[in-house]
Order: sequence, then structure tokens, then C-alpha cells
Amino acid sequence: MEPMAKHSMLYSYKLAVLSKAMWKSVEKDWQNWIKPFNLNLNEHHILWIADQFNGASISDIASYGAMHVSTAFNFSKKLEKRGLLTFSKKQEDKRNTYVCLTEEGKILLHETLRVFNEQTFNVYQGSLPIKEIYGRFPEFSELVSIVRHLYDDDFIRQFNDDSFISSKPSSKQRSYL
Amino acid sequence: MEPMAKHSMLYSYKLAVLSKAMWKSVEKDWQNWIKPFNLNLNEHHILWIADQFNGASISDIASYGAMHVSTAFNFSKKLEKRGLLTFSKKQEDKRNTYVCLTEEGKILLHETLRVFNEQTFNVYQGSLPIKEIYGRFPEFSELVSIVRHLYDDDFIRQFNDDSFISSKPSSKQRSYL
Repeated sequence: MEPMAKHSMLYSYKLAVLSKAMWKSVEKDWQNWIKPFNLNLNEHHILWIADQFNGASISDIASYGAMHVSTAFNFSKKLEKRGLLTFSKKQEDKRNTYVCLTEEGKILLHETLRVFNEQTFNVYQGSLPIKEIYGRFPEFSELVSIVRHLYDDDFIRQFNDDSFISSKPSSKQRSYL
Repeated sequence: MEPMAKHSMLYSYKLAVLSKAMWKSVEKDWQNWIKPFNLNLNEHHILWIADQFNGASISDIASYGAMHVSTAFNFSKKLEKRGLLTFSKKQEDKRNTYVCLTEEGKILLHETLRVFNEQTFNVYQGSLPIKEIYGRFPEFSELVSIVRHLYDDDFIRQFNDDSFISSKPSSKQRSYL
């Protein structure tokens, strides 16, 4: 193998295996966290995204959640059957269907967020030594730049948005309801 | 939610979703790459690790490949049935069983590596602008530090090791054969 090709391959391998290692750890901890609520990871992520965006289209959920459109749709339907969300139109956009949390959905989501314990989230724990040294959590600018290439700017914006964990159960009715 | 708790949650969410986004992209590209060889991702990774380490125990494969021990074992058995690897003892360690590539396994693995095309590997492509600016690929030191916390130093060492893509088909017989 040519040195250049070997270098590309080694870099790709490193990135692939680092991504796998991170995700497998996150996946395990995320599953354990929400297991008591009888939700799987996709279902929980759908509730979370729909909440953050005050109602999200299936295509929004697929994009922001890095999941297939069919996965987003099928699990949203399951959540609808459980009464945790509804498919409805927005006042300002009658053409598209949005997934919106029901009151019960909001209560369940906020209960999961309330019991989140970062001590059981290993990637968080693994970040503490960096925080200790630099006084803040790492920003992963290289990683963010790569993910921006894979997805789009909106995907990245979800991490900065002040609307993160925006709504609370029993907050005022919104225009799309 | 308290500002501190919200900050921890937002950081954890960002890390979780970035990891997912990276891994889903890698997974898709990796699967497409090796599909013509009738291998799945775990099988290919097992062949690769066994090759890098000149024979690897099931526990090595599970550790370095970030997979369950049962996944490592079951897919290794499948590869054994296809004649791509054998379970054998090493000369210097008669107690443990090592997974070693057969000549056919080496030929297949090296054929997959030969046809690797970084242009179809999106995380690689997404790294090129960084390489353009800094003259080298990113090192992901923050990520590596977190993964070192999750796994161990050996896990990280696999990316630096000069033994990467070490053996070639028809190379001289090794002590464990």
C-alpha cells in the first residue's frame, strides 16, 4: 500500500473507530437512562426534538436526530398511539404535518430530563478532566466542522439554540395547538 | 431546570448527537464499501483487528472493535465457517485461543483495503477543509482523551501503531501458525 493511501486509510480508520467507540458508549448510557420510562432511544429523541422545536416535521426529526425518515415516522406513530404526541398542522403552515407533544408527552419528557444523572453518562464523565484543565467543556470544533459537512448548519445550530429544553408542561398554549 | 443542570444536559446532548451523527455516517459508508465482499461491518472489523494484531483473542477483538464479546465470538465463528480465519493457540501462549486469518482471509481483507476509496467516505471528505487550512488532518485530542476514559490506553494505541495494516497475504509464516 502506498504511504499516502495508508495514511488516508489510517486516518479514516481512526475516525471510524473513535466514532463507534463514542456512540456505543452514549447509546448504552442513554438506553439505561430512559429504560424506566418504557421508551427506546429513538422514541425519546423524537419527543426531545419535537419539544425543542415546538413541533417538528418528520423530516426535521430525521435530520436533527440523524435517523431515517421511516424510523422517524414509525416511532412517531408509536408515540401517537401511546398518547404522547399528535400529528397536527401549524397555524402558520397548513401544508405540512408537525409532530407536537401532548401534555402527557411533555410531562413524560420532562420527567426523563429531571432524572438525568450526568454521573451515569460516561462521555460526560470523561470530559471532566478537560474541564478541570481548561475551565470549560471542550467544543469539538474539528468534529463540528466535519458534522457540518455531513449534515447542515441547522443540524449544528440545535446545540446552540436557546430554545433547548424550551417548553415546560402546562406552559401556555402555542399557536399550532 | 437549574442553569448548571441545563448546561450539563446541553453538553451531554451535544456530545451524544455529534457521536450519533458521526457514527451513522461512518456506518453507512463502511457498509457500502464492503458490501461487494459479502461481509458485514462487524465481520470486516474482526478480520481487520485480527490482521493488525497478528492474531487476536476474542476479548481483544471486543475491546479494540468496541463490540460485545458475544458479537465478537459469533461473527468470528461465522468467518471460521467461511474459511477466512481459524481459532488457534499461539506458540508463546498456549492457554488462550487466538483468531488468526487464513491465507484466504488475508487475501479478502487486503482486497477490501485495496479498493477503499476515501472519496466515498464522507467523514474523510469532511476533514479535507481542515487539512487544507492546517496542513494536516485533525487529531481530535479532546475526543481521544474522552475515549481513553471510556476504554483504555491500548484502545487508543491501535491508531498509532506501526503494525497497522501490517501483514500481507503470502507473507512469511508467523510463530502462531
